[in-house]
Amino acid sequence: MLPHAADDISRDGKSLILAYDHGLEHGPVDFEPNPDTADPERIFELATHEAVTSLAVQKGLAEAYYPDYEDEVNLLLKLNGTSNLWMGEPNSAVNCTAEYAAGLGADAVGFTIYGGSNHEIEMAEEFREAQEGAREHDMAVVMWSYPRGQGLRNDGSPDVISYGARLGLELGADVVKVKYPGSAEAMGDAVEMAGPADVVMSGGTMRDDKAFLRNVSNAIDAGATGIAVGRNVFQRDEPERILDALEAVIFQEADPAEALAIAESDD
Amino acid sequence: MLPHAADDISRDGKSLILAYDHGLEHGPVDFEPNPDTADPERIFELATHEAVTSLAVQKGLAEAYYPDYEDEVNLLLKLNGTSNLWMGEPNSAVNCTAEYAAGLGADAVGFTIYGGSNHEIEMAEEFREAQEGAREHDMAVVMWSYPRGQGLRNDGSPDVISYGARLGLELGADVVKVKYPGSAEAMGDAVEMAGPADVVMSGGTMRDDKAFLRNVSNAIDAGATGIAVGRNVFQRDEPERILDALEAVIFQEADPAEALAIAESDD
Amino acid sequence: MLPHAADDISRDGKSLILAYDHGLEHGPVDFEPNPDTADPERIFELATHEAVTSLAVQKGLAEAYYPDYEDEVNLLLKLNGTSNLWMGEPNSAVNCTAEYAAGLGADAVGFTIYGGSNHEIEMAEEFREAQEGAREHDMAVVMWSYPRGQGLRNDGSPDVISYGARLGLELGADVVKVKYPGSAEAMGDAVEMAGPADVVMSGGTMRDDKAFLRNVSNAIDAGATGIAVGRNVFQRDEPERILDALEAVIFQEADPAEALAIAESDD
Amino acid sequence: MLPHAADDISRDGKSLILAYDHGLEHGPVDFEPNPDTADPERIFELATHEAVTSLAVQKGLAEAYYPDYEDEVNLLLKLNGTSNLWMGEPNSAVNCTAEYAAGLGADAVGFTIYGGSNHEIEMAEEFREAQEGAREHDMAVVMWSYPRGQGLRNDGSPDVISYGARLGLELGADVVKVKYPGSAEAMGDAVEMAGPADVVMSGGTMRDDKAFLRNVSNAIDAGATGIAVGRNVFQRDEPERILDALEAVIFQEADPAEALAIAESDD
Amino acid sequence: MLPHAADDISRDGKSLILAYDHGLEHGPVDFEPNPDTADPERIFELATHEAVTSLAVQKGLAEAYYPDYEDEVNLLLKLNGTSNLWMGEPNSAVNCTAEYAAGLGADAVGFTIYGGSNHEIEMAEEFREAQEGAREHDMAVVMWSYPRGQGLRNDGSPDVISYGARLGLELGADVVKVKYPGSAEAMGDAVEMAGPADVVMSGGTMRDDKAFLRNVSNAIDAGATGIAVGRNVFQRDEPERILDALEAVIFQEADPAEALAIAESDD
Repeated sequence: MLPHAADDISRDGKSLILAYDHGLEHGPVDFEPNPDTADPERIFELATHEAVTSLAVQKGLAEAYYPDYEDEVNLLLKLNGTSNLWMGEPNSAVNCTAEYAAGLGADAVGFTIYGGSNHEIEMAEEFREAQEGAREHDMAVVMWSYPRGQGLRNDGSPDVISYGARLGLELGADVVKVKYPGSAEAMGDAVEMAGPADVVMSGGTMRDDKAFLRNVSNAIDAGATGIAVGRNVFQRDEPERILDALEAVIFQEADPAEALAIAESDD
Repeated sequence: MLPHAADDISRDGKSLILAYDHGLEHGPVDFEPNPDTADPERIFELATHEAVTSLAVQKGLAEAYYPDYEDEVNLLLKLNGTSNLWMGEPNSAVNCTAEYAAGLGADAVGFTIYGGSNHEIEMAEEFREAQEGAREHDMAVVMWSYPRGQGLRNDGSPDVISYGARLGLELGADVVKVKYPGSAEAMGDAVEMAGPADVVMSGGTMRDDKAFLRNVSNAIDAGATGIAVGRNVFQRDEPERILDALEAVIFQEADPAEALAIAESDD
Repeated sequence: MLPHAADDISRDGKSLILAYDHGLEHGPVDFEPNPDTADPERIFELATHEAVTSLAVQKGLAEAYYPDYEDEVNLLLKLNGTSNLWMGEPNSAVNCTAEYAAGLGADAVGFTIYGGSNHEIEMAEEFREAQEGAREHDMAVVMWSYPRGQGLRNDGSPDVISYGARLGLELGADVVKVKYPGSAEAMGDAVEMAGPADVVMSGGTMRDDKAFLRNVSNAIDAGATGIAVGRNVFQRDEPERILDALEAVIFQEADPAEALAIAESDD
Repeated sequence: MLPHAADDISRDGKSLILAYDHGLEHGPVDFEPNPDTADPERIFELATHEAVTSLAVQKGLAEAYYPDYEDEVNLLLKLNGTSNLWMGEPNSAVNCTAEYAAGLGADAVGFTIYGGSNHEIEMAEEFREAQEGAREHDMAVVMWSYPRGQGLRNDGSPDVISYGARLGLELGADVVKVKYPGSAEAMGDAVEMAGPADVVMSGGTMRDDKAFLRNVSNAIDAGATGIAVGRNVFQRDEPERILDALEAVIFQEADPAEALAIAESDD
Repeated sequence: MLPHAADDISRDGKSLILAYDHGLEHGPVDFEPNPDTADPERIFELATHEAVTSLAVQKGLAEAYYPDYEDEVNLLLKLNGTSNLWMGEPNSAVNCTAEYAAGLGADAVGFTIYGGSNHEIEMAEEFREAQEGAREHDMAVVMWSYPRGQGLRNDGSPDVISYGARLGLELGADVVKVKYPGSAEAMGDAVEMAGPADVVMSGGTMRDDKAFLRNVSNAIDAGATGIAVGRNVFQRDEPERILDALEAVIFQEADPAEALAIAESDD
């Protein structure tokens, strides 16, 4: 964790990472609720929304679209990832080197670690290489810290999530992405464990506006610096509208009801 | 996926890849229907047919023959591949580096990934190295995206094929080769998932002229940019004749009947 | 083992390594007895106590805090480590290269080897790389020598601990950290086996002041050069007080009762 | 396969490789029929026979003897090989790099691949490195193509041997060494599958003069360019005599009876 | 095997390697018969005895002591080795690179290979790297050739020992250390198989003076160039005395009785 390393992918210390690696991780099924979003162009356009502080994609999408968006979008290149055709213990292929990401103009790199997996050690060593490579090129390091594996019964418990947040700090991430642990209090614990590293909650599967924004609001109140969100934006009929609301919650500390009112009035 | 990266192995945005890696992948048995085609020279000659936009071979054949054909044939060097003596989970040895392929004059590299195999992650990481090496040498990247493995029941389903097409885009391929998923509509889905990456259907096992050309025609109508074909050309008695017909279907958008008529008249 | 290599992390040939890699190795649970110590800043402050000759942390903490403490604290960068989410045979991920540690200003590197684990050989080879890298950058090498694994019934026996001490010497460590083997005599054996390499006892789980200091005093009497201690400092209500006492025991060869008296009078 | 790459280890397009890696592959037992041949000097002397176009040995023998024979003998350095103490699936250690072989003055490198072994893919990738290294140093590449492994029932069938010959061509060998498949016709098939790559039969276990020479003669008639032979030379009482006969069969296309007569008259 | 490579660690073509890697391989238990010998200084002093042509130690001991002995002792740095806490198939960690050994002033490197182990192939490939590294730095290569593993019933049989001797020659060792195979005749066979490579017998477990010297004398008579001995020297009450006797047997070809008499008279 380097102080200020994440400044390029945040604003006033807050961040909204628009995550769009679902085509690799989950496949076409994630685009069914809103078929237009299978088109990466639609998402790069969304990423120009002023609420969005960075866009997380795999190498192939960055190669194809980022040259046209580099003035308006901050690129968070996700370095590893695996299809869900994979049946083995949780693991993730390194699809892009830090060096290549830097060549694509990335402001930050993203890396998943499945703590507790039989592949944890190998993933941590790959993370080391990514992290040290990112430092050479002045890119921020965002860890997707998702404890998961055959020996781990309850990977969504507050204790495990707090542990995951700490792993990010210890191993050298500037930002740690963790699941929302179910309450503001538990989120506060995770934030405390991450120390000076930023903590962002992951958006997760789609929920209704209020429930979703309530969690985000709780997370911000608990000290999280923002969210990394994909499906809860692009699977909605009006992705821009939820971005408006998220902007209010994250950057203006509006409560969910206010935020939705602001989003309505923007229409 | 880099815009225009595949221009050197296509014409007017369309492509016909003559694939000839069967000596490695399947062995001599594939040459039995037309024994002359065991001789690589016969295939390099075929590749000078104006319908063919590139020829896909392994390193050894490129070393032996390409110096005599480099003015007339675009070389797509297949970097990995494995004999069918191999009994393990689907996997593929990296038989050639991108650097060596560039030294042989390749315009593009080809790489197989078996999504869902127990070796998927290792193959994806080998692909990364090949892809980044290809970028250094300005060679296009063609992915043979063939989900296959012990955990995958139905590797020919439209959903799996669409997922395979998307993998190509996400991981940085310029062209993705997928199986024909059984209908124009399903092919359209795969094409949509690949976004700006080109999709070519694989020729597969030999079928009669009309059935074969009908599939190709459907694929083109659905947005595929062409075909990668081996057995459906070289296992026929008159390989040039089917190339004539494919040329009509792919580049002139003739329907199969017209295309066969054109092929006849060329005789 | 290089003569004088450990001079930078010792004083008058004695050393007190404040170890703080528990956030990675054990997780948040270790901070519960004294919640303030979850904050690394609290520990870096502690490390400025004159008793402390070096602070052992993982890369992420060094990146975040060491620039503010480099004048007052000697950095011992722990190069490997693994979360206790890991369920496999004892093993440890290499989270930092020696080169990167040198760039962070480290005076020494730390490395765990689990002799007897199914991963012993791989860990020894990773140690080689770390050790030779440390030599290039004039950093001392501290081995956490913890025999442990499926085939090892009694990993706390004096024989095993002596063997562990010898491994440190043979493989090129300057300082070997071993468990306290239960008696001054057994500690003396371990010290003898380590030859010219320094031996420090590990602090282990928290015990009451007298029992803890008695062990430390015995170890010093037996020739150990000091201690590497974490929980027995930061899990107490008054970490500074036990550091005062440790200083008396280690550097002034006070007996435990005297040392506690000195610590009281410092209040 | 590079045209003319094998010129340095052949004469008039024909070749007789004297193979002497048995000390590694089989151990001392192979020298029992003719104990003098345990002494490598005896074999280097044999290799000066005008019939011999190259001598295949492991690194250690080349280091010890080749400096004295480099004017009279062409060196084919066998890069991999394994003792028969090895009990696992067929595999072969890479005992020498191509670079080191070049430094020893090698004209060619030899490499075994066990197609169908559980180690096939790893061996193919090691072959890639050897092959590309050989190209850098202008050394010919000879593949010992021996399909063998737990999943392969009949590794001596003509089909499997033809497939092995093709593997050599596809993967970039200049010369492929295969077992004699039992008939001239089957040998012809293998030769055809190897295309422009040279095919040499392996000598195999010792047989009587006529049976042995008959196979060699059949192989030459079928288009093989020669033989790689060890035991059928050095396990005989008069190795020079069989070399005389082989020279007649291979280079003068004598039939076995003529060849034996020539050999007699040379005495 | 390079002619004259071992000259720096022999005298008049004979050699006595004092081996002292027992602290790693066997642990403190080996020092119990003569506790002073746990102190490496005692052994470095012994190594200045004129009978000793080199001292074999691991990296850590060389770092600590060799600078004070480099004028009087030839250093044979053992590059691999493993503790006997290891429970797996015979294997050995590479604890030192050839480059690092050269930096320490080594005249030779030592490397163990367990032929027949499930790790044989990996060890042979690590040996390759060590051997080629040694050549770059003009260090002799000594192989500890110890066939051993789950598939090997009788690893002390003359046949297996002869095979081990040959492995050393084939793979590029200058000196091969093998077990004494039980008779002068069997030792002669091993020596013959090693060709121009030197063969030294390993001292093995401690025996009485006469039995031990008888074996050494037989080995020398059979063509061995010397011995690599540890326990049979340092576990005795008077290590210098047995070195006197060994000197007589090895360098003056005294018989055991004469040698013991000479050793007595030296007192």
